[in-house]
Amino acid sequence: MRMKRNPIGVISMSYARPFGPEHFFLFPRMRASGMDFCELLVPEPDEFDPEAARTVANAAGLFLLFAVRVNASRDLSSPDPAVHAAAIAYLCAAVDVASAAGARIVGGPLYGSPLVFAGRAPMPIGEPERAARIARVTEGLRVAGAYAAERGVTLAIEPLNRFETDFCNLAAQAAELARAVASAAVGVMLDTFHMNMEEDDLPAAIRAVGSALVHFQANENHRGFLGTGHIDWAAIARALAAIGYAGPITLEPFRRRDRRLSAPLAQWRPPEVDEDADLAASAAFLRGVLHAAAVA
Amino acid sequence: MRMKRNPIGVISMSYARPFGPEHFFLFPRMRASGMDFCELLVPEPDEFDPEAARTVANAAGLFLLFAVRVNASRDLSSPDPAVHAAAIAYLCAAVDVASAAGARIVGGPLYGSPLVFAGRAPMPIGEPERAARIARVTEGLRVAGAYAAERGVTLAIEPLNRFETDFCNLAAQAAELARAVASAAVGVMLDTFHMNMEEDDLPAAIRAVGSALVHFQANENHRGFLGTGHIDWAAIARALAAIGYAGPITLEPFRRRDRRLSAPLAQWRPPEVDEDADLAASAAFLRGVLHAAAVA
Repeated sequence: MRMKRNPIGVISMSYARPFGPEHFFLFPRMRASGMDFCELLVPEPDEFDPEAARTVANAAGLFLLFAVRVNASRDLSSPDPAVHAAAIAYLCAAVDVASAAGARIVGGPLYGSPLVFAGRAPMPIGEPERAARIARVTEGLRVAGAYAAERGVTLAIEPLNRFETDFCNLAAQAAELARAVASAAVGVMLDTFHMNMEEDDLPAAIRAVGSALVHFQANENHRGFLGTGHIDWAAIARALAAIGYAGPITLEPFRRRDRRLSAPLAQWRPPEVDEDADLAASAAFLRGVLHAAAVA
Repeated sequence: MRMKRNPIGVISMSYARPFGPEHFFLFPRMRASGMDFCELLVPEPDEFDPEAARTVANAAGLFLLFAVRVNASRDLSSPDPAVHAAAIAYLCAAVDVASAAGARIVGGPLYGSPLVFAGRAPMPIGEPERAARIARVTEGLRVAGAYAAERGVTLAIEPLNRFETDFCNLAAQAAELARAVASAAVGVMLDTFHMNMEEDDLPAAIRAVGSALVHFQANENHRGFLGTGHIDWAAIARALAAIGYAGPITLEPFRRRDRRLSAPLAQWRPPEVDEDADLAASAAFLRGVLHAAAVA
């Protein structure tokens, strides 16, 4: 289907994790909440069939995008040749999934090097190892990028915050990596949740990435629904308009408003109430500021 | 020495880690950069003598505060009785250090439950364990609070972001814990770096803590020098003025402006350039907004 300017979607984690065929009934609900697409986590082999997901999602009026899941056993930055090879194989398999699902984008921390969610503490590394990691990641992304290019899929490198990875934390670093890979099928994606922790100036960081931006995730500082935190959405929308960004924008409001002491906040949990109206309001809010930025 | 309204200080980590007697020459430099106090990490037994630190710091015109370091072997939230007891012993020893150094405040994640820096991933916990953790922490803080009260020291409970702990992430949760402990020697401290990731509205969170606030850390969203990020300092200062907060404010600009790809950002590293002028500017900036808020 033809993509309209800045289609807005939602990550599957807002509803369920893992996401399986038993959750396909949610696609019409996403559409009813104003979504244009669903961003799915790349399924593990036993989770769902991408063609089946495409059929149900398209019938509901949604297209699909995919987000990678990296871990210590598939880590492009790893010095272990088997782990590095497994990461390349995973990215290529993710491209195959996207292709089967009619998805044009596979994004996320493609470079690997997970920290807190892999139970790994940040540790100093020497300059030779820093350079070697960059070389391993760049070479792996060239292989995966060539594979993606042949299939009409774009890989999107996402910087994460300092606690989730020690490889790529800034928009400028993701752009540097994309330039080093030098593939038309490898670009940059940005998530305001991570940017809020790392960037000096979020709109300036978006403007500096410019035409390399291929995907965007609009999240509040705490991952709640838009407008419940302090991200300056009008300024973000003006920056996206300034670089002519017409690509997709995903909402990932998967923080639950759980204010109980001693309840792990970073640990994913299912929604406890129907959040459809909150999601619809976030999309309306975002469409409103995008419209205002376009006419400003 | 008599404390003036909102004394401004700096964390020792901005200069060195570990901090030892060989770093005491830095106290006059801190003073020359406009600092009123130094916040030191509670020394491990072999690091430095707190009375010696006091002598040198006081001679330079600084007073001292202390920040705790928790880890998996001293964790007040732990179900392991030995680890829980070690955490209480550590907090009491930290009070002794503070007392010897003439310090009135010992703050930080007193409750334990470290995540990323302990190499621990967030995991779901059941309701019985959640309640049991709260009970263990509350009971431990009552013991340490009684010990602190007898020595004129105040313990300050600091919420950390979701990746650094899974026990206390919000100002309201720290206030709830302080109320449960119900000791005049146990209060709340807040750090805008963590608040930036977790709170809906930073000034509102400060106002809600109100008179329970006993310590404050003023940090940019990315831990750079004040004014290099997006924290709304005027609004923060007005909230502090509104609750009549006259206590200390620590600067912790220990993020280095290292923009190299693949360089671990969460991993502490020493400064590479003389940052005295940047620190002095942060203090001047903060005194300016505090003054404006007081007269507003």
